[in-house]
Amino acid sequence: MQSVNLKRLAEELHLSIATVSRALQDSHEVSPATKERVRALATALDYQPNAYASSLRRNQSKTIGVVIPKVTNHFFALAINGIEEAARQAGFHVLIYLTHEEYEREVSIIQHLKGGRVDGILMSVASGTENTEHLRSLRIPVVFFDRICPDISTANVTTNDYESGYQATAHLIEAGCRTIAHLLLSSSLSIGRNRQQGYLDALVAHGLTPSPGLTLPGTPANDGPAGQVGRIRELLQRRPDIDGIFASVERLAVSAYHVCRELGRRIPEDVKIVGFSNLESVSLFDPPLTTITQPAYDIGREAAKILLRAVEKKRPILPTQSVVLASELVQRRSTMP
Amino acid sequence: MQSVNLKRLAEELHLSIATVSRALQDSHEVSPATKERVRALATALDYQPNAYASSLRRNQSKTIGVVIPKVTNHFFALAINGIEEAARQAGFHVLIYLTHEEYEREVSIIQHLKGGRVDGILMSVASGTENTEHLRSLRIPVVFFDRICPDISTANVTTNDYESGYQATAHLIEAGCRTIAHLLLSSSLSIGRNRQQGYLDALVAHGLTPSPGLTLPGTPANDGPAGQVGRIRELLQRRPDIDGIFASVERLAVSAYHVCRELGRRIPEDVKIVGFSNLESVSLFDPPLTTITQPAYDIGREAAKILLRAVEKKRPILPTQSVVLASELVQRRSTMP
Repeated sequence: MQSVNLKRLAEELHLSIATVSRALQDSHEVSPATKERVRALATALDYQPNAYASSLRRNQSKTIGVVIPKVTNHFFALAINGIEEAARQAGFHVLIYLTHEEYEREVSIIQHLKGGRVDGILMSVASGTENTEHLRSLRIPVVFFDRICPDISTANVTTNDYESGYQATAHLIEAGCRTIAHLLLSSSLSIGRNRQQGYLDALVAHGLTPSPGLTLPGTPANDGPAGQVGRIRELLQRRPDIDGIFASVERLAVSAYHVCRELGRRIPEDVKIVGFSNLESVSLFDPPLTTITQPAYDIGREAAKILLRAVEKKRPILPTQSVVLASELVQRRSTMP
Repeated sequence: MQSVNLKRLAEELHLSIATVSRALQDSHEVSPATKERVRALATALDYQPNAYASSLRRNQSKTIGVVIPKVTNHFFALAINGIEEAARQAGFHVLIYLTHEEYEREVSIIQHLKGGRVDGILMSVASGTENTEHLRSLRIPVVFFDRICPDISTANVTTNDYESGYQATAHLIEAGCRTIAHLLLSSSLSIGRNRQQGYLDALVAHGLTPSPGLTLPGTPANDGPAGQVGRIRELLQRRPDIDGIFASVERLAVSAYHVCRELGRRIPEDVKIVGFSNLESVSLFDPPLTTITQPAYDIGREAAKILLRAVEKKRPILPTQSVVLASELVQRRSTMP
């Protein structure tokens, strides 16, 4: 099928390409009669302006890119909804790119986006990313959300990770726990480090001594649920005195439930569990899971608004700025005293 | 910041833009010495070829678009993973667009994609879509998955919706249910109609009489969990004899659990529930939910493979083809006799 482009329209109408283009842009340089002929044929042939050609002319794609680790995590699924709402109001399209927690994929996506496909980037760093060289020398604005990149100066939108880690741990201590494990996604991520510091400070503030063996460190990017279950099982078998678990991400809380069942550890009688999670169905769990619930939708929307303002003002570099939206501890039966 | 484009390189080197462009494409028309000078400056200034310009030259964007209702549904989150795996192997990028189940958003996205931004489209129709005019006259190949568009001839990848509806209903009858409700997402979707037919045929085959009042019809696109809960509550109060529920989508099964708790109906003693779901944590529910589990990852990967073959052969129209991958009934305690 021959595609309908400016050239084809020009040929059929015996006009120059420039005239057809101006006619479609309603230029005063073209007579009303010619404009009418051009529009009629364009409609008849269902002509669609080429996005790439229009974008080259405008030097703006009216599109923002969202680079996130995965969508099977409910936090990101909800954050996308907030991002799309802000973008829709501003008349922008949203492209979603997934890194699957892999450094190499993240580098390849950023390289691709440097080619001018989007006007700005919203990003949450992959757990496998330790080097941030690929994020430098971006010529379009970038705003980080949730998982930020502390050595790059720009706007960041996060939740209060330190306070949430502190609050989750203090809650377990107040429920009677004395030997509390922390399950981390990655110690190289900003959010992991902050939650870990909150956990440690809460222990000390309550007169408990932190033990390095109780923090399950970051796990390889894509080891999947089976690998996680294995490491948590090993921890609970090595330390049968563990009576509380703080899970830094949803998947680790789910894995901890599976391991407790397998080992016959009752929740909350033997082990109490609190986890970061935005999964709506945690209240249906047996027992319902106490969560730190992040304002995922608001985080996404706020980050998108900041980015879109920078895009509209054509500012490639954003002033350093930290927006922190508080998470909420929602008590359920998994931490009942 | 001044952007580094071909013009800038040409100015700095006192060459024509055409020569710089040819040098970067390693053309034999440019001397090795000049090529070397151009490449050195391009590297020094971190020149990135403009994606739109390259795409115009190549007339291919090496990108496929995925148009789906939402990512908070685990089925789509997993299907995306399968799509991305196939695309990565073929060297293609994946752009994800969300319709949020709204017809207007779907039309706007398709209109946007007609502009040549992608080489092909993978699509699952929004529940709000009843008119398919916008899906005609696409000049790039489209493959539907899960929610197809029966009046458009192309390749479709689905699960065995009719058989799954039949199997879920027969399973409830065999567990002792006599008054079975079917909670539908949308009766205008292909998958809804097929699951409903399977439900009806299973009832009749087991000597039960279908009652129209037991099918909760499609719900408005974006009414959210609260609206669903209200409608399910109304149904269970109006028909206290309901002893089995077949939920056509994950969210409706979760809502049914909430309503049963609220009304004091015990699962599985008073009401047995089976639902389509790909949520990993259903086994942690109280009680664990019996599911029809779709091969979401495989459906996504298969659909992407078919699309990518058509893109690579530059075939805008795909032969009509139906690939059906079977779902699996996973029995858990919510349907225990």
